[in-house]
Amino acid sequence: MNIMKQIETLTWSGDHLTGVLRLIDQTLLPTELVEIECRSIETVWEAIKSLRVRGAPAIGISAAYGVCVGIQPILQGCSEEVFFAQLEKVVAYLASSRPTAVNLFWALDRMKAKAFSLLGKPVNEIAIVLLDEAKAIHEEDRAICRAIGNFGNELVKDGDSFLTHCNAGGLATADYGTALAVFFAAAESGKKIHVFADETRPLLQGARLTAWELMQRKIPVTLLCDSMAAMVMRQGKIDAVIVGADRIAANGDTANKIGTYGVAVAAYAHKIPFYVAAPISTFDLTLKTGDEIPIEERDAREITCGFGKRTAPEEVQVYNPAFDVTPARLIAGIITEKGIIQPVDEKTIANLLR
Amino acid sequence: MNIMKQIETLTWSGDHLTGVLRLIDQTLLPTELVEIECRSIETVWEAIKSLRVRGAPAIGISAAYGVCVGIQPILQGCSEEVFFAQLEKVVAYLASSRPTAVNLFWALDRMKAKAFSLLGKPVNEIAIVLLDEAKAIHEEDRAICRAIGNFGNELVKDGDSFLTHCNAGGLATADYGTALAVFFAAAESGKKIHVFADETRPLLQGARLTAWELMQRKIPVTLLCDSMAAMVMRQGKIDAVIVGADRIAANGDTANKIGTYGVAVAAYAHKIPFYVAAPISTFDLTLKTGDEIPIEERDAREITCGFGKRTAPEEVQVYNPAFDVTPARLIAGIITEKGIIQPVDEKTIANLLR
Repeated sequence: MNIMKQIETLTWSGDHLTGVLRLIDQTLLPTELVEIECRSIETVWEAIKSLRVRGAPAIGISAAYGVCVGIQPILQGCSEEVFFAQLEKVVAYLASSRPTAVNLFWALDRMKAKAFSLLGKPVNEIAIVLLDEAKAIHEEDRAICRAIGNFGNELVKDGDSFLTHCNAGGLATADYGTALAVFFAAAESGKKIHVFADETRPLLQGARLTAWELMQRKIPVTLLCDSMAAMVMRQGKIDAVIVGADRIAANGDTANKIGTYGVAVAAYAHKIPFYVAAPISTFDLTLKTGDEIPIEERDAREITCGFGKRTAPEEVQVYNPAFDVTPARLIAGIITEKGIIQPVDEKTIANLLR
Repeated sequence: MNIMKQIETLTWSGDHLTGVLRLIDQTLLPTELVEIECRSIETVWEAIKSLRVRGAPAIGISAAYGVCVGIQPILQGCSEEVFFAQLEKVVAYLASSRPTAVNLFWALDRMKAKAFSLLGKPVNEIAIVLLDEAKAIHEEDRAICRAIGNFGNELVKDGDSFLTHCNAGGLATADYGTALAVFFAAAESGKKIHVFADETRPLLQGARLTAWELMQRKIPVTLLCDSMAAMVMRQGKIDAVIVGADRIAANGDTANKIGTYGVAVAAYAHKIPFYVAAPISTFDLTLKTGDEIPIEERDAREITCGFGKRTAPEEVQVYNPAFDVTPARLIAGIITEKGIIQPVDEKTIANLLR
C-alpha cells in the first residue's frame, strides 16, 4: 500500500498554464522505475501508443490531462476560435493513439463536452475548468476502483484461488485497479487468497506488472505462462477468474487483452466462473455486440524480438492482435462500481446503467 | 528440403571406438546455426537436459548414440564385468536427463536389451553391434516419420489451415518430423496449406524452430502467441490442430509440450479436430492413464528471464511445468507410422499396437 502510494501511475502538478503530467513508464517495470514528464501532446500520445501508460482507465485519465497539456501552447491571449480549433485537433490526435480502449474516447468526449458547455466564456477560464475536469476524472477513478473492489470482494471466500490475465491493477488505473482491486479489497478485509498471474504475451504485463503489484501488497502470487492456465484449472487450483476490460458492448461481449478469450473458454470448460471487473465508462452501448469492437493490431516485432533478442526467423509472417473479444455467454458476471451484473445480457446491463 | 538435408538434427561420424555424435544446438536457432560435438556422455546429457536437442524422437536417437559415446572411455581391453557396469551407469545417467519423454527410456531399454542379448561375446563386438543398433534407431525414425506424414496427409484437404504447438518437426526427429511431417507430405503432394504456429512459451520452439522449418520448405506460416490460438479458432481460420507427443498412456491420454492441453480444450470448444502425430515408441502401455505420466518442472528462470533480460520481479514464485496431459476424449485421432488411431481409446490403441 505504502509503495503504491509513493509511486503513482500518473500525477499532475502545476496549473492549467504550465502544469505537467507525469507517468510511470510501465514498459520499464519491474526492473526500472522511471517517470516520464509529459510537457507536450506528442509525449502523451507516444506514451499511450507505446503502452508506457496502459490499462483502459489510466489511458482515459492520461488523455484527459493530455487535453490540458495540448492546449497549453496556444492558451495565452488566443481567441475563442483558435482555442476550440486547437481543442478539436488535440482531441482527434489523442483519439488516434489506440483504437480499442473506449475509456480513451469517453474521457476525450467528456473533456470536449465540458469545453463546449462553456462556449462564450474567456478561454483562460475554460482551460481552468478543463483541468478541474481532468482532475475530477482522476479522482472519480479512485472512488470507482474502491467500489469495484468492495463489490467484487462479496464474491470472494476465505482461501480462494484466482487466475488473472494481463494487468488490471493500480497501474492500469489511478491507484487501485479493477480486477486486482477485488484481490486488494479481499486481502484488506482479512481473507487469505492466492492469485495465479498469466505472464500475458507478448508484452508480459502479467509478469512485469501484476506479479509486481501483488508482491508489493504481500498477496501470494504464482506466475504462469499463458499456456499453463488450462492445466492449472484442470488441477482444481482455480476458484474463479477475474480480468479487466477495454470495451464492453451492449450485450456484454467484452474486449480485453489478447488471450482473455482463451482463458474464458478454458474456464467455461472447467466450470470455473469467469468475471470481468470494469468501470461503467468501459461500456459502449453504441455497439450491439462484440463483433463491432475494432481490434488493434500491433507491430510484429513485439512477438519476434520483444526481449531485446530476436526469437523468430527474419520475415516470418506474424499475427499480433492486441485484444480479443469474450462473448457474454462465457462471462459469469461483470463487477462495476454500481454493483455486479449477473447474469450478463443486454437487459441486465441496461438496467444497471440506467 | 535441401537446407534441411544439409543441416541434420543429429549425425554420427566415425566408428564405435572414437566416433562422435554431432547435434544442432537448437537453443541458438534461428539466429545461429551451431553444431555441438558430443565426445563425452556429459555433453550428451547436458544437450538433452538443456534442450539443445529436443523432441521425443530426437531425444531417443541422441540417447542411443549417447550410450555409444558413454562406453568409449572403458572399451579398449576391458572385461565383460567392467563393460556391463559402465553400460548400466551410462543408461541410468542418460535416463536422468529428462523425465517425461518416453522415447528416451524406450531407446535406452532397447540398447541395453541388445547388449545383454550378446552376453558372452567380446565387448568390442558388442560395442560394434550397439553402434549399429543406434544407427538402426536413427534410420527407423526416418522411415517412421515419412509413414506418419503419409498417413496424416490422408486427413488433409487442399486449402486447409492448421494450428500446431511447439515443434514436432524435422528438428524433433531424425529429419522429417511427426506433426510437421503431415504438413511436409501434404505440401509435397501438391496441396496448398497454411500453418499457424504457436510461439510456445517459455522456450519459443514454435517461433524459433517450427516457423523456421516451415519457411525453409516454403509452406506459408503465421506465427502467433499461444494466447491468440483460441481467437484464431473463433475466426474460423483453423480446420484442424496437429501436435506431437512426448508420452501416450494406454488409454490415449497424451503428454506434450505445456500449452497443448489448452489448445485441445479450445479446439474442442470450436468443434475443430485435434490430432496427435507420434511414433509407436511414444506409447507407454505401462501407464493406464495420463495421470500416471510424470511431469517435468523446469527452472523458473525460463519464464522470468528467458531472453537475456529479466521480465518479472525478483523472487516471484513461478510454476513452470514442461508438459501437460491432454485427455483422450479431446483427441480426434493419433497419427502413427502404422496408421491412424481413430477414435482414441484403450481398445483402438491396443489393436494398432498388437
